[in-house]
Amino acid sequence: MFTLPGKESGTPTTCAGPASTQDLGSSYGDCLEGECSRKPDQKLPELHGVGDPVMFSDSSYLSSRGRMIKWFWDSAEEGYRTYHMDEYDEVKNPSLTQSDMQWVEPSLLQYADWRGHLFLREEVAKFLSFYCKSPAPLKPENVVVLNGCASLFSALATVLCEVGEAFLIPTPYYGAITQHVYLYGNVRLAYVYLDSEVTGTDTRPFQLTVKKLEMALQEANSKGVKVKGLILINPQNPLGDVYSLGELQEYLVFAKRHQLHVVVDEVYMLSVFEESVGYRSILSLERLPDPQRTHVMWATSKDFGMSGLRFGTLYTENQDVATAVASLCRYHGLSGLVQYQMAQLLRDRDWINQVYLPENHARLKAAHAYVSKELRALGIPFLSGGAGFFIWVDLRKYLPEATFEEEMLLWRRFLDKKVLLSFGKAFECKEPGWFRFVFSDKAHRLRLGMQRVRQVLEGEAQVAEDPAPCKTQELSDQRR
Amino acid sequence: MFTLPGKESGTPTTCAGPASTQDLGSSYGDCLEGECSRKPDQKLPELHGVGDPVMFSDSSYLSSRGRMIKWFWDSAEEGYRTYHMDEYDEVKNPSLTQSDMQWVEPSLLQYADWRGHLFLREEVAKFLSFYCKSPAPLKPENVVVLNGCASLFSALATVLCEVGEAFLIPTPYYGAITQHVYLYGNVRLAYVYLDSEVTGTDTRPFQLTVKKLEMALQEANSKGVKVKGLILINPQNPLGDVYSLGELQEYLVFAKRHQLHVVVDEVYMLSVFEESVGYRSILSLERLPDPQRTHVMWATSKDFGMSGLRFGTLYTENQDVATAVASLCRYHGLSGLVQYQMAQLLRDRDWINQVYLPENHARLKAAHAYVSKELRALGIPFLSGGAGFFIWVDLRKYLPEATFEEEMLLWRRFLDKKVLLSFGKAFECKEPGWFRFVFSDKAHRLRLGMQRVRQVLEGEAQVAEDPAPCKTQELSDQRR
Repeated sequence: MFTLPGKESGTPTTCAGPASTQDLGSSYGDCLEGECSRKPDQKLPELHGVGDPVMFSDSSYLSSRGRMIKWFWDSAEEGYRTYHMDEYDEVKNPSLTQSDMQWVEPSLLQYADWRGHLFLREEVAKFLSFYCKSPAPLKPENVVVLNGCASLFSALATVLCEVGEAFLIPTPYYGAITQHVYLYGNVRLAYVYLDSEVTGTDTRPFQLTVKKLEMALQEANSKGVKVKGLILINPQNPLGDVYSLGELQEYLVFAKRHQLHVVVDEVYMLSVFEESVGYRSILSLERLPDPQRTHVMWATSKDFGMSGLRFGTLYTENQDVATAVASLCRYHGLSGLVQYQMAQLLRDRDWINQVYLPENHARLKAAHAYVSKELRALGIPFLSGGAGFFIWVDLRKYLPEATFEEEMLLWRRFLDKKVLLSFGKAFECKEPGWFRFVFSDKAHRLRLGMQRVRQVLEGEAQVAEDPAPCKTQELSDQRR
Repeated sequence: MFTLPGKESGTPTTCAGPASTQDLGSSYGDCLEGECSRKPDQKLPELHGVGDPVMFSDSSYLSSRGRMIKWFWDSAEEGYRTYHMDEYDEVKNPSLTQSDMQWVEPSLLQYADWRGHLFLREEVAKFLSFYCKSPAPLKPENVVVLNGCASLFSALATVLCEVGEAFLIPTPYYGAITQHVYLYGNVRLAYVYLDSEVTGTDTRPFQLTVKKLEMALQEANSKGVKVKGLILINPQNPLGDVYSLGELQEYLVFAKRHQLHVVVDEVYMLSVFEESVGYRSILSLERLPDPQRTHVMWATSKDFGMSGLRFGTLYTENQDVATAVASLCRYHGLSGLVQYQMAQLLRDRDWINQVYLPENHARLKAAHAYVSKELRALGIPFLSGGAGFFIWVDLRKYLPEATFEEEMLLWRRFLDKKVLLSFGKAFECKEPGWFRFVFSDKAHRLRLGMQRVRQVLEGEAQVAEDPAPCKTQELSDQRR
């Protein structure tokens, strides 16, 4: 009989893994690894430690997988943590008595805290405090950095949900999230279908309301799908829209009422090029209704145009969630070299404020104005809220029939003319015929692109006869 | 009714995800996402495309999850691929007629091929061809780069195995692999228990034989555990041992006989500091018995001492596996900046051959010699095969009882003296009392460490009375 390392013990080096993972899940039957290859005449060890549900029951916020993942973090690295807390150095710490928790300065080329180097998390906390306009300074211990928001969706889905559970998400939405929560996490999305019709209390097309959230939640429940959270993208992709402060509050209160986690993707936070839209980060709220279930993500892919750099960050006050995500960061790790570079970038507040953002916003605004003007000249309705890199364009009148097959055919005609657009089905838009036009490009390239768009649309022989009356209009005109 | 994009269509931009993932798995019942939140009076769409098993049946090498993951790659990015194959450039390609597949030069800060930039994969192929002594040049298309071997274990487990299936692995082994295949992949390990007794046809302690493999496989099968592959670590961690050419051949033939994948972790490939051990990379074989089921991993963490850089690579001739792993590289992505730096490093063959490796091997050899001498002076048996950073040390005689509790207590006494070792249970060693000593450190630090080790061992009041006779000896003496 043996006891596996529990809370008070663990694995001593970075190279040594956990002692064992027998019966990590409850759903895998009786034949556990470790047992399976043991000869029948061998005495079976009793299974303490990893298999004991008591060990995993210390957080009501995590899924069973999440608790197991967090357990690995909590228990499996005591030795290594002990070493780093009081690291031997012939000059600085020869007697090994220094025990300042902050004295951790591992080289950028060595294994480090999987949450990210402290110097970087400090910069991220300062950066988000400033740009999200948080009422109080944000804290480095609530920050986990990793290689992009795709990874963060994957990690959050896995640590918050059981296999087969779901997040609510309003459609249309950035469709890759489907893969991000499913491929590794086996978590599904339950859609809150929005459409362009302005009915009831709606004041604009594709408006998300608590009533629609409640209905989608009820619908999922009635089908036996357990919903664990709500995903909000703000600024919204593909609508180019932002949620008002009042709306955000309502969604958060809805989520709290049902004990749902809220994952807020603010990856276009600094790409609000019309100040008048009044964008508010969730981190700017004076008081979050349910801070332990509110998790924010941001990255440099969009706001700094560096999708190939692979940098994203989580901000959450929930230490169980932060720890479980950090545990998965073994698989989403960011090079120490990149962490250093990122810290250098984020602390350069003068350049960001005085050079980069003004120039970036001016260019986005000009590009947006140009494409908007072209669309108006073509008589094409569109939505656009002054944020993001895209315009949500209504090409329904160019579909001979209102089907997604026709939408795809039109998309292909654009592609044949070497114009790459995104069709609405990719965002799970329920109305065929919507397209996302990305405008964050150079002026002469946009001109060429719009010429080709015009060629395709003017070449459309068959135009739908009398499509449903289009109620959409420019959102920016309507909202203030 | 709508048809989701099939093989011939897809999602047009990097920002647009797949059209849908309804019914991605077959095991999630009837309530599919998309349906779940649809109102009862809405007509349910027929589910073509993603849910159609025919679409996923194009590779017998992949798990159902692996086929689904590969499908996303194959089908979901037609537009983006089309764009990159003939990318508009005002100077180089204004008329958009250039269609050379190789003309892909995206900036390091943009989304790129998730397999890794071609320039890096070319360097990796050349590098591995040279250092693995491959009979023919290795090919860039068989290379996938990502942020470390932990991620690679996670991805391979997921694309090769169904949930709950298993890999065979000989123990003792680098214990973190347990997490790597389980946390995301839900894949288990079936142990091939090795021990220090030299019996039967064994010629050395902890020897892996085909007979032991067969028995472990049979045992797993009899328990209803489906085994999909075999994991080999070569040079071995923690034994510091290498497999001979004959042994490798035997293991591969065994795997082929049972249609098992073989995942070979060669992460200590360049850390063989005794040339006489005759290390052979699996890629040096004239002919692999089952090349479509043989997958090799290497990284810079160990051989270049850069665990914080986060660079690892897969080499496999199986394009289905390479593609499915690449699809998961959305979550294991490597910064373009680091990719560039890695390519620069790997191509600097002169420095690696003439400066780095000779110096590194000389230091490893000297450190190994010192710790070996100290252990001998203490009368402590150990194994060491001239490869890796560690010595596998037999401290069984210091345990009052042969239990893992006592092993843990001894480990803690080392830690109390500020010496961080790895205990055998972390490697699933079946005999309590083995420890892994890492010697890859500076001479004066090793001296201090060994002084403390001596203090702990001399201070052990209670020594086991007459432990089982220790048959282990220095492996390096025995093997040639």
